[in-house]
Amino acid sequence: MSSDFRSFKDYRWQDTDLLAYKEDGTHFKGVSRQILFNGSTDLSCQLRYFEVASDGHSTLERHEHTHVVMIIRGAGEVLLGDHVQPVKQFDVVTIESQTWHQFRATGSEPLGFLCLVSSERDRPHRPDQKEREQLLNNLSITDFLRF
Amino acid sequence: MSSDFRSFKDYRWQDTDLLAYKEDGTHFKGVSRQILFNGSTDLSCQLRYFEVASDGHSTLERHEHTHVVMIIRGAGEVLLGDHVQPVKQFDVVTIESQTWHQFRATGSEPLGFLCLVSSERDRPHRPDQKEREQLLNNLSITDFLRF
Repeated sequence: MSSDFRSFKDYRWQDTDLLAYKEDGTHFKGVSRQILFNGSTDLSCQLRYFEVASDGHSTLERHEHTHVVMIIRGAGEVLLGDHVQPVKQFDVVTIESQTWHQFRATGSEPLGFLCLVSSERDRPHRPDQKEREQLLNNLSITDFLRF
Repeated sequence: MSSDFRSFKDYRWQDTDLLAYKEDGTHFKGVSRQILFNGSTDLSCQLRYFEVASDGHSTLERHEHTHVVMIIRGAGEVLLGDHVQPVKQFDVVTIESQTWHQFRATGSEPLGFLCLVSSERDRPHRPDQKEREQLLNNLSITDFLRF
């Protein structure tokens, strides 16, 4: 790999594909993905940009691997374990192993964020019926959740 | 480590120290550092925010480890091997192993950027006398360099 410059314009990066968030499913809404750094021998992590359209949401999930997130566009809310946290530009959220999380663009503009992960990581887990009931029992997050 | 939210305000992050860029030296000017993520067991990298004051510059250096940089504040220029690249907000620069690089805030406002590196990395190398002469022989970058 050689050094690389990717110019930014209108929330797209030069030479960077605009990808689907996930293959398919109805457990997310209006989310796109761009891979800004895809890992190298000595830096085994990926830096992605996700954008959630207004009124959209990412999948409600948890997994073993750590997420580091920085909001760079718009504002919204994130489920972080047992509570909902409002987020705005440049706020940083570190999501620890096995923490339920979900992003929602609750304002009128898209919510865009960087997400840093290890190149080697486990697959996300969505709530099963029992976990869904447990989550819904927490009344402070009930209205926020999208399954 | 538990999940963590760091609110952003005026280019400072909650619960995040404002640090010196390096211990000492005259090979940089007006640079500060904040560590936004300091590595975890399953994500062995650091995410730092560096800010270069107007007319300031980072150290001219190279090293074995890869840098991934995203500008988030202001604009400036970066030496990237054998040329100088103008940079602006949200541009991404991947700096490959052993590539000479230096950031300068050439505008009237600070240049702030995220920098992603592996937690385990080699120390930077500054140009010795012979390398300095080689760099200065490239007339397209001569005026840019600060030693």
